[in-house]
Amino acid sequence: MKTVPVGVSARHIHVSPEHIEILFGKGYELTNFKDLSQPGQFAAQETVTIVGPKGKFEKVRILGPARPSTQIEVSRTDSFALGIKPPVRESGYIEDTPGLRVIGPVGEVELERGVIVAARHIHFHTSDAEKWGIQDKQKLRVKLHGERPLILEDVIARVSDQYALDMHIDTDEGNAAGVNTGDLAELLE
Amino acid sequence: MKTVPVGVSARHIHVSPEHIEILFGKGYELTNFKDLSQPGQFAAQETVTIVGPKGKFEKVRILGPARPSTQIEVSRTDSFALGIKPPVRESGYIEDTPGLRVIGPVGEVELERGVIVAARHIHFHTSDAEKWGIQDKQKLRVKLHGERPLILEDVIARVSDQYALDMHIDTDEGNAAGVNTGDLAELLE
Repeated sequence: MKTVPVGVSARHIHVSPEHIEILFGKGYELTNFKDLSQPGQFAAQETVTIVGPKGKFEKVRILGPARPSTQIEVSRTDSFALGIKPPVRESGYIEDTPGLRVIGPVGEVELERGVIVAARHIHFHTSDAEKWGIQDKQKLRVKLHGERPLILEDVIARVSDQYALDMHIDTDEGNAAGVNTGDLAELLE
Repeated sequence: MKTVPVGVSARHIHVSPEHIEILFGKGYELTNFKDLSQPGQFAAQETVTIVGPKGKFEKVRILGPARPSTQIEVSRTDSFALGIKPPVRESGYIEDTPGLRVIGPVGEVELERGVIVAARHIHFHTSDAEKWGIQDKQKLRVKLHGERPLILEDVIARVSDQYALDMHIDTDEGNAAGVNTGDLAELLE
């Protein structure tokens, strides 16, 4: 059985250097709170409030390091509570997506775009992908062995020698199956 | 293709006659707000607030008619927000489940038990089940053709001549797939 560790992502935000300065003050640098599974990525100490037309969430974790464009990843459940309808997208593809208001301790930003529901995907190190015969961008089927077992289709393979083996799903997907970060999923043929 | 209409259930509560009187007053009768897919079942006009150790939800819809035991059905996502850990159960099986505080306009009830995450299931009229060769309690596999397609395993068949064909899933499952009430799911062989 080919198994892949699961990482369940709660709502979070990647912030551009410009927006970090607006939200937290000039020259501000994010603080590493905890390393994430992908090399160089970290959960920051800092959080923000995100505000939509219908609702808001406080203490939304920033993931670092800073990125060229600010991007907010929410679950479909979150999007209903916020009152917006973001598309399911791969990270980085934020054309024609809705925005939100982002409030930090020093200032706030009205995003014109940047909110997505992250498309589920698996990060493969090149060596894992070669061993299992998997190509970058390939769509995979993955079984989650939780309290309510289910099979995810169209799971996108992302292959790089900068990646560590890990499947990223959101809280809707994790809770629908009853799996948690660190559980093992089964890659189907 | 064997298709089944989907009903996505948001958090809701079934209330006993005794608890209706405590919450709404002596002799109170529920008001039918909207008929549901199953004959005789309805969404009531009335709502309550449910309160857990960590959070609460207001305007939780009562489904009628009254039942012998009060039962609250929440999603796994809801259960984290409330701060309780209800098991995945078929409706009616509330032994060893957590409770919640329920607040109505007149009074309130501290439930000792009754909170579950409803196990997904399909109601089949006897004639549908005979046509497709499905037995009561059989476990089925069902494909959801939403924005994020997935296959649900262990979907419980419930067969009765009192039922209308309908699959019941919760908001975590609906949102993980991106399906809504009225969409069609595919019953797999």
